[in-house]
Amino acid sequence: MPIPSPARIADAELAAIRDTAAAMADAARIETLRHFRSPLLAPDNKAALGFDPVTEADRACERAMRAILAERRPRDAILGEEYGPAPGTSGLTWVLDPIDGTRAYLCGAPTWGVLIGVTDAEGAVYGLIDQPWTGERFEGGPGVAGVTAPQGNRALSVRRGVGLAQATLMTTYPEVGGPDETAAFRRVADGVRLTRYGFDCYAYALLALGQVDLVIEAGLQPYDVVAPIAVVQAAGGIVTDWSGGPAHGGGRVIAAATPELHAQALALLAG
Amino acid sequence: MPIPSPARIADAELAAIRDTAAAMADAARIETLRHFRSPLLAPDNKAALGFDPVTEADRACERAMRAILAERRPRDAILGEEYGPAPGTSGLTWVLDPIDGTRAYLCGAPTWGVLIGVTDAEGAVYGLIDQPWTGERFEGGPGVAGVTAPQGNRALSVRRGVGLAQATLMTTYPEVGGPDETAAFRRVADGVRLTRYGFDCYAYALLALGQVDLVIEAGLQPYDVVAPIAVVQAAGGIVTDWSGGPAHGGGRVIAAATPELHAQALALLAG
Repeated sequence: MPIPSPARIADAELAAIRDTAAAMADAARIETLRHFRSPLLAPDNKAALGFDPVTEADRACERAMRAILAERRPRDAILGEEYGPAPGTSGLTWVLDPIDGTRAYLCGAPTWGVLIGVTDAEGAVYGLIDQPWTGERFEGGPGVAGVTAPQGNRALSVRRGVGLAQATLMTTYPEVGGPDETAAFRRVADGVRLTRYGFDCYAYALLALGQVDLVIEAGLQPYDVVAPIAVVQAAGGIVTDWSGGPAHGGGRVIAAATPELHAQALALLAG
Repeated sequence: MPIPSPARIADAELAAIRDTAAAMADAARIETLRHFRSPLLAPDNKAALGFDPVTEADRACERAMRAILAERRPRDAILGEEYGPAPGTSGLTWVLDPIDGTRAYLCGAPTWGVLIGVTDAEGAVYGLIDQPWTGERFEGGPGVAGVTAPQGNRALSVRRGVGLAQATLMTTYPEVGGPDETAAFRRVADGVRLTRYGFDCYAYALLALGQVDLVIEAGLQPYDVVAPIAVVQAAGGIVTDWSGGPAHGGGRVIAAATPELHAQALALLAG
């Protein structure tokens, strides 16, 4: 599993990254909430007007975040879901998913999120998961692991000491991926106490909060997972691919609260 | 399908019911949030201490609601999930689920709810769905259909004109119920654009908000469904059992935004 190097980012650089990410997340809230729960999201409106409000919200949100990066971090590279890669010279890349969980967004459910991650050559170094509707903002990086929310702020920390048979597992879709991936997931699901579906990036936030123990997904893109990796690792958890290798490239991803759960789940995924 | 009689409750009586329900929901917020996302909810704590915080939150919440009813509405009957039935003489029954979606509650997900419903001899006449963490409160009754939330208040109204092939369907568990119920559900799911899992009572609130078009569940108790029925009907939707009969007794329940979707889904459920 990847071991984060604590000294990969200097304190002043981390502070600048956090300030920039906060400004981006603030801008993203405005753009994503503009159409959330709007009548424009009805499928018939979409067809009639030739206007897809989810895509529009996605794009406007990413444009707003990129404008802030252009001003504040012109030397950093960018990889965004909607507008693709832009090169940089600093060695850092901002990895952006303006709306992770567009289907939840479409349904009016408050379980989608804005994902802002930063990678260096080794992998994820910083991540922010924002839920604009609830106002919860989860943040993880070197020496940073916390959530701010209207109900109060708290430190993020995975929970320990929960065995597989008592664990809670989350994923987004019951199918998880193709038939092999469904079967592998099912082997883990059959071994845990509780499996819940439908939470997209919010599942990683709940793991970092110490509320759930495992998140297993497949078919992810880098922008789906860089920010969650940083948040979960900062909270003391582990994120890898299903073979135990680095996960920041996407694909099949497992996040676990503890090394013991991670090892047990990897063995079950392998069959 | 049941046709609500608009004049079943006098205006003054409805106002008194609404005041009482609001006081109950306020009390329920305190009791349910006391343990929500608490470390006490970890499975190992539960085993070690012989203390089940979900059950305790459930019971404390129902006791708080019953205490208010004892003071303000002593002639009404009560049916609660945790403390069962209590007789009355007014012809009205308060139907209470202190935490609908205890598994979501256990996971820290903000998709459970407090359900407060009122029935008369014909069925549901008033309902309130409260989500204490997000602060959203959905209310439906004769002449009443609205949600209050920190983000603003709005009227509840189902959306119209969405055909089955464009519809969004929600349920709580992918299995829905037994094998026949799974298969029947799957026939509907195969005909819609989008199916989402995991939302308990929040799914009915999203239907009343005009965000989703169908909710189909099985194995419900009366306290799971009376409040959602009133909220959905007040928003212009339809709730019946899978045969088109009254749903306030629980069991297999379908909620639909329009008569057309309701009829199409019922036909698919029948096979």
